Amino acid sequence: MGIITLTTDFGAADWFAGVMKGVIARIAPRTEVIDLTHQVPRGDIRAGAFALAAAYRFFPRGTVHLAVVDPGVGSTRPAIAVRTDQYAFVGPDNGLLSWALEGEKVKAIRALENQAYFLPEVSQTFHGRDIFAPVAAHLSRGISIQRLGPARDGYRQLVMTPPRRTRAGVEGEVIYIDHFGNAITNIRRDALQISADTRLEVRLGRRRLCPLARFYQAVPAGKPVALLGSSGFLEIAINGGSAAKELSLRTGDKVFVSKCAA
Amino acid sequence: MGIITLTTDFGAADWFAGVMKGVIARIAPRTEVIDLTHQVPRGDIRAGAFALAAAYRFFPRGTVHLAVVDPGVGSTRPAIAVRTDQYAFVGPDNGLLSWALEGEKVKAIRALENQAYFLPEVSQTFHGRDIFAPVAAHLSRGISIQRLGPARDGYRQLVMTPPRRTRAGVEGEVIYIDHFGNAITNIRRDALQISADTRLEVRLGRRRLCPLARFYQAVPAGKPVALLGSSGFLEIAINGGSAAKELSLRTGDKVFVSKCAA
Amino acid sequence: MGIITLTTDFGAADWFAGVMKGVIARIAPRTEVIDLTHQVPRGDIRAGAFALAAAYRFFPRGTVHLAVVDPGVGSTRPAIAVRTDQYAFVGPDNGLLSWALEGEKVKAIRALENQAYFLPEVSQTFHGRDIFAPVAAHLSRGISIQRLGPARDGYRQLVMTPPRRTRAGVEGEVIYIDHFGNAITNIRRDALQISADTRLEVRLGRRRLCPLARFYQAVPAGKPVALLGSSGFLEIAINGGSAAKELSLRTGDKVFVSKCAA
Repeated sequence: MGIITLTTDFGAADWFAGVMKGVIARIAPRTEVIDLTHQVPRGDIRAGAFALAAAYRFFPRGTVHLAVVDPGVGSTRPAIAVRTDQYAFVGPDNGLLSWALEGEKVKAIRALENQAYFLPEVSQTFHGRDIFAPVAAHLSRGISIQRLGPARDGYRQLVMTPPRRTRAGVEGEVIYIDHFGNAITNIRRDALQISADTRLEVRLGRRRLCPLARFYQAVPAGKPVALLGSSGFLEIAINGGSAAKELSLRTGDKVFVSKCAA
Repeated sequence: MGIITLTTDFGAADWFAGVMKGVIARIAPRTEVIDLTHQVPRGDIRAGAFALAAAYRFFPRGTVHLAVVDPGVGSTRPAIAVRTDQYAFVGPDNGLLSWALEGEKVKAIRALENQAYFLPEVSQTFHGRDIFAPVAAHLSRGISIQRLGPARDGYRQLVMTPPRRTRAGVEGEVIYIDHFGNAITNIRRDALQISADTRLEVRLGRRRLCPLARFYQAVPAGKPVALLGSSGFLEIAINGGSAAKELSLRTGDKVFVSKCAA
Repeated sequence: MGIITLTTDFGAADWFAGVMKGVIARIAPRTEVIDLTHQVPRGDIRAGAFALAAAYRFFPRGTVHLAVVDPGVGSTRPAIAVRTDQYAFVGPDNGLLSWALEGEKVKAIRALENQAYFLPEVSQTFHGRDIFAPVAAHLSRGISIQRLGPARDGYRQLVMTPPRRTRAGVEGEVIYIDHFGNAITNIRRDALQISADTRLEVRLGRRRLCPLARFYQAVPAGKPVALLGSSGFLEIAINGGSAAKELSLRTGDKVFVSKCAA
């Protein structure tokens, strides 16, 4: 019994995610489908790529990760399947898979061109149902990735601006806002070179947050706090509130971290 | 191992959909439950009927499709189960099942009256949990539909206004707005009598969209586009935007299609 | 094959609920995970406790109910597992489990301290993934609750203000607002001492609703109605509308019930 995960911007209002599960059940009746999220902001490939990268490695070996954030559906943008040491990935080749693949040893990349693994009728606007779901189901059943189409020697890579190290500290930016309004930055733990007792100061424009804390309630309710989040990145939160809302944070906003003066 | 799909207006905020799965698991522990959607707009029977009709046939033979959009819950409105060639359907007899049933060969219709297949205690307001879920679970386990209650010779049919053909073209209307803000009309592909190279003009009030495209990105970002959507109907979209919002479209709005003058 | 239910405030926008299912699938691949809800209002322990209490008993014997509404995550607040006659419960010991446990015969309570049942690396902010999901998965596989950590002799109890009986009637308050805008009160059926033909008057501030009805459509569309809801509590609704919105109801608002004068 295999697993297929789904990461899409299809939302929950319609039958789009559900019908993909029907397609999968017809081809691979013993495969379990797990939703990562269907609430990626519409067409936001970077947000989808971040969600997939944050979650994929917690799944069992052999899981097929299917992601569809695909504003170019129906155009000539290629679709791919990627086999790695531990997993398979299926989706449009628009960068959506790339941040997850960075952490993987890639074994094979194939373009999805063999219509034998598609639904008999392929619509112009819903390749999630007509191409990606059946291909993922066939992979989950164990067909060889080689049968899906011609080999490709690479995939489209999304750029994540690395944090910039200056004499005064590290400058990064907000790359993801979560449901709680926490603002996740591109600054990884190892970029901070901190030991247990380092006190850090985090600045957002003119605002100062100090020090880095270990949990949300380490600061009084309503106060901002910076901490190392569960995906390994520095994040800005407000204890009991929404940092995105109350600090007006958006992806792309600059964040500056330095050793604490006090 | 069978499948039950769920289509409701219960939303995701509460335990309503989840508790139905608990009820099903007690009766039919090997049945898999798949959510089509729980976000049908509150009490909107037509939207629920459209979602079910668009999705049901992608599921394996034998699937039980359970739908609950039921503003009349607790009143005397009847509840039914319908057996077709390929599937079973369960829900209130308020038209919700009718657009899916149009595409099916109906074998038997039964009123849900045999309390042996309900939960022991039936509430006044949550028949999804107390009647529909247990009945669907029993059907999924293989009981005969005949045991559920007396035969009925029909079910309530929702009217879908057919598009009107005039000398100048085809006039239809918007019947469903999806998560992306795409406006799906009641104009099917075959109503358009188009060949591959026909160029069509779509009008919304005074606005003109021309020509019919094959995919969203066939027009520049932010521009409206008409295409044949994945459910077989003409739909109005905006590349990278929401047609519903930006063109102020609602269900019932008129859409006019004619051969392109240019 | 066991069942784990999930009740959280994680929302659907991110990978948070999905990744917990990945963690569970690695440890207990044959366990089915059922979402009760991930839309508990952020940090609202009382709403989460109410949802769990309303739903848990509809699940099969042996189900593990996992709940995470945990504003104190990472602080010193304890986490517990509770074994009852029929179920196991896992979550932070902040009252979230208490309303469900009120209806159960508690057999054992353990603090979650044995790191052998956690993920190897535990983050500061996502114990749902790193502690609660793996513990629930191990319980679902059948490990003894005794292995999770030291015994505790109690759990934190949320207070639910009981309705107050006066000579004139019963005074209660709104304790939960559902997706439909129905306002559920703390007044149980048995507190009302009604027989089938009792006519009741429900007052909200100066507003009068009379009589208690059996279903929503017992009153004209747009009119308020009081009825005994599916969780056994008196609730205030509007036929075809949202009582919360149209009557400006919030949790904590007083509701007064008396025998009908008319």
